[in-house]
Amino acid sequence: MAHLLSTSCSIKVSSGCRPYSLPLKQGLSTFPTSLTFQASESPFTRLVSRGEKHQRNYTVHATTLPVSKEGPTQPSSGSHQTLKEPSKPQRVMVIGGDGYCGWATALHLSNKGYEVAIVDSLVRRLFDHQLGIDSLTPIHSIHNRLRCWKSLTGKTIELFIGDICDFEFLSETFKLFEPDAVVHFGEQRSAPYSMIDRSRAVYTQQNNVIGTLNVLFAIKEFREQCHLVKLGTMGEYGTPNIDIEEGYITITHNGRTDTLPYPKQASSFYHLSKVHDSNNIAFTCKAWGIRATDLNQGVVYGVRTDETEMHEELCNRFDYDGVFGTALNRFCVQAAVGHPLTVYGKGGQTRAFLDIRDTVQCVELAIANPAQPGEFRVFNQFTERFSINDLATLVTKAGEKLGLNVQSISVPNPRVEAEEHYYNPKHTKLVELGLKPHILSDSLLDSLLNFAIKYKDRVDTKQIMPSVSWRKIGVKTRTITA
Amino acid sequence: MAHLLSTSCSIKVSSGCRPYSLPLKQGLSTFPTSLTFQASESPFTRLVSRGEKHQRNYTVHATTLPVSKEGPTQPSSGSHQTLKEPSKPQRVMVIGGDGYCGWATALHLSNKGYEVAIVDSLVRRLFDHQLGIDSLTPIHSIHNRLRCWKSLTGKTIELFIGDICDFEFLSETFKLFEPDAVVHFGEQRSAPYSMIDRSRAVYTQQNNVIGTLNVLFAIKEFREQCHLVKLGTMGEYGTPNIDIEEGYITITHNGRTDTLPYPKQASSFYHLSKVHDSNNIAFTCKAWGIRATDLNQGVVYGVRTDETEMHEELCNRFDYDGVFGTALNRFCVQAAVGHPLTVYGKGGQTRAFLDIRDTVQCVELAIANPAQPGEFRVFNQFTERFSINDLATLVTKAGEKLGLNVQSISVPNPRVEAEEHYYNPKHTKLVELGLKPHILSDSLLDSLLNFAIKYKDRVDTKQIMPSVSWRKIGVKTRTITA
Repeated sequence: MAHLLSTSCSIKVSSGCRPYSLPLKQGLSTFPTSLTFQASESPFTRLVSRGEKHQRNYTVHATTLPVSKEGPTQPSSGSHQTLKEPSKPQRVMVIGGDGYCGWATALHLSNKGYEVAIVDSLVRRLFDHQLGIDSLTPIHSIHNRLRCWKSLTGKTIELFIGDICDFEFLSETFKLFEPDAVVHFGEQRSAPYSMIDRSRAVYTQQNNVIGTLNVLFAIKEFREQCHLVKLGTMGEYGTPNIDIEEGYITITHNGRTDTLPYPKQASSFYHLSKVHDSNNIAFTCKAWGIRATDLNQGVVYGVRTDETEMHEELCNRFDYDGVFGTALNRFCVQAAVGHPLTVYGKGGQTRAFLDIRDTVQCVELAIANPAQPGEFRVFNQFTERFSINDLATLVTKAGEKLGLNVQSISVPNPRVEAEEHYYNPKHTKLVELGLKPHILSDSLLDSLLNFAIKYKDRVDTKQIMPSVSWRKIGVKTRTITA
Repeated sequence: MAHLLSTSCSIKVSSGCRPYSLPLKQGLSTFPTSLTFQASESPFTRLVSRGEKHQRNYTVHATTLPVSKEGPTQPSSGSHQTLKEPSKPQRVMVIGGDGYCGWATALHLSNKGYEVAIVDSLVRRLFDHQLGIDSLTPIHSIHNRLRCWKSLTGKTIELFIGDICDFEFLSETFKLFEPDAVVHFGEQRSAPYSMIDRSRAVYTQQNNVIGTLNVLFAIKEFREQCHLVKLGTMGEYGTPNIDIEEGYITITHNGRTDTLPYPKQASSFYHLSKVHDSNNIAFTCKAWGIRATDLNQGVVYGVRTDETEMHEELCNRFDYDGVFGTALNRFCVQAAVGHPLTVYGKGGQTRAFLDIRDTVQCVELAIANPAQPGEFRVFNQFTERFSINDLATLVTKAGEKLGLNVQSISVPNPRVEAEEHYYNPKHTKLVELGLKPHILSDSLLDSLLNFAIKYKDRVDTKQIMPSVSWRKIGVKTRTITA
């Protein structure tokens, strides 16, 4: 049975929303000078149940506060004229909105005047429990996060808790929220996690592929004009010895020419799941006229966005462990605690990177400039390229400015990947839409190393070393312990 | 709990194996002049159970007759020297061995001296029940088929009944049978089936992708030298405006050159599942050293092989319905019963075709010439190209020779596909290994139209018209009735 629970602000919540201890650098323009609190008109409303034959294992939480009472502003980048309801602010469903990128994106879009709903099963938090790992930064419950956001800005973000692999749950969220755009971050997003054991490999592909299929069917059935903004990964392309284009490549072969999907060479069961998604989405654009943007994102870094730094209860997660952490995050934590930076193999592995402030910009740009019906649009979403050795050098230099003595060591590479290779991916389409990139050298001190140093007492050094091997993965379920 | 049940020959079985009513044209050389019957030494042997916590929903059937007693001959094409046990006949597991291609392949390999085990959940037979359809040709139970084969040839084909998505079942089959090669036909193989409704789309991708992942993990864990021969489809490529190569294409782009996976443009959730499989397999070849051959097969036609025509109990299936039937089969049935040939749309859709006698040849060639460890080898497995209009013309002319007056009509195309397009796929690699193709114009009369005419009283004309639409697929579960 699905329930509607109010998550709108209450006295208890506002009293628990303490002033943030860090200076509010960029969020002041959106910080309300007076806060109003509005009780939910109907805190417990039962949804219509549709012939359920067995006990349901999810709960739908959503505010029952009518959206029209929130006094939304127009989206900053304007509504697209081809949408059916161009005069209304756009309604954006953020699937995976409690995760690292999803949370920052949900707040950013809410701040920009979009009506936002978060759909999340919270399974990412369960992974932390199961693996015995934790975010470096303390993160609050999604319920407290949203109450805090409401108390700070007066804006309600609706919350639907459930699994998008459960189509009945997803159908209900679509019918209740009626999204104009869906931003889909709701996948298992760690390559090492997908390489722990057979069950995690299968889980990753099943969860990601079926979840995305369900989103496509929900759009077709309930909101056919809805624009799907799907998070892919630059890792789908692998490291070919030619330039990487944005989704498509024009090939002349034996005297004939065609523009075809860019060949993919993914290197983990996770990355493969994203390739599968891209292929499935492309087909539904062609067969059903779905409008979709596939954002092949690079490695995201940084903790702060304008919105998350408004209050410590809005603080985003910072993963540095061997499963969910990225090399850059690990290096910053290692520098902070005096651990040598652990370079996997030769360190020539080169990848694409972007600041999380650019992630939220890019998603907003994609929503504000939607794909056309039937269009499968692919953007490479990153701003800079670095090798692992480049990152080690940058962190070493930034650490020196803070008085840290940083060393590097090479450890055996747990992955199967080229450690020296050509890498030249294109990334012009989002810049053409207006992306103003942040650069890593500026962010390293104020959004990475400073957090690592501030929270260094929370570092569990046993989480840092790689615990998952691409070659040794087996069929027995593994319990990873830090 | 898994059980071992004997499927070796018994008095009851041999007495039920009536002489075949059709002449034995090509099978005589392998037909034994005297038959020996051997009782199972241990008809009911319980497998070791490994901590099962809940009731199992599969049963393992396998002969307990020791393989060494069967007196196998050497494989016709010789064992590959790099295998660990080059002197022994190869042990081939045929997953999906009760299906159309799998059954013919299992018999062919058994006839050629390979030790064969069939792994099958028999779900293809369930689909017939659920959809209210049936093979034009009467097919016997897998148990009777194998008993008949044993009585005719003295050869035992082991049988494991279960679902490869159940990894514990699959593990047991690997540990019991210890295959040197796995031929994997065990997937939901109908594009229209995958487009009936959401649940069938999800089922197809989940079943096919997870089943194949399990096979890859089983090889890695239990038989790392085992050669995977995986059935893909020419439909993975779609209809690009350039020549289709065999799996890879060398691209020169902005002055640099690389050989990359050929871009795929699949056009149903079924075809997409095969693309997902190909990508997953390619990764495991690279990461784990799996040896794999991906057979991108065209549309298979024909009922007869040397082995299936030995006896009517060995007869293969002939699908002509709108879900599992192919256009060619439907046209033959339509010609036989005086129904106009139903051409979808303009009829310029061009596809690759092969006789089922070539399917079994190709699989044998792939097994006898295995991929190297770490190699992901792709063969385009077909012999000829025809458009739908070409097929209609061929059937019309062949029907005239049999005194049939054949008409054609155009019906709205239920699929989303180009109806006029360039199509030039390469197919030299299997020919280089020794494939001797049959051609359709020869097979049409003796392996298609003649069966359609022989069994025309079994034709259910309500099954012929398309019942599945690529554009109208929805989220509600559909019950298709003929």
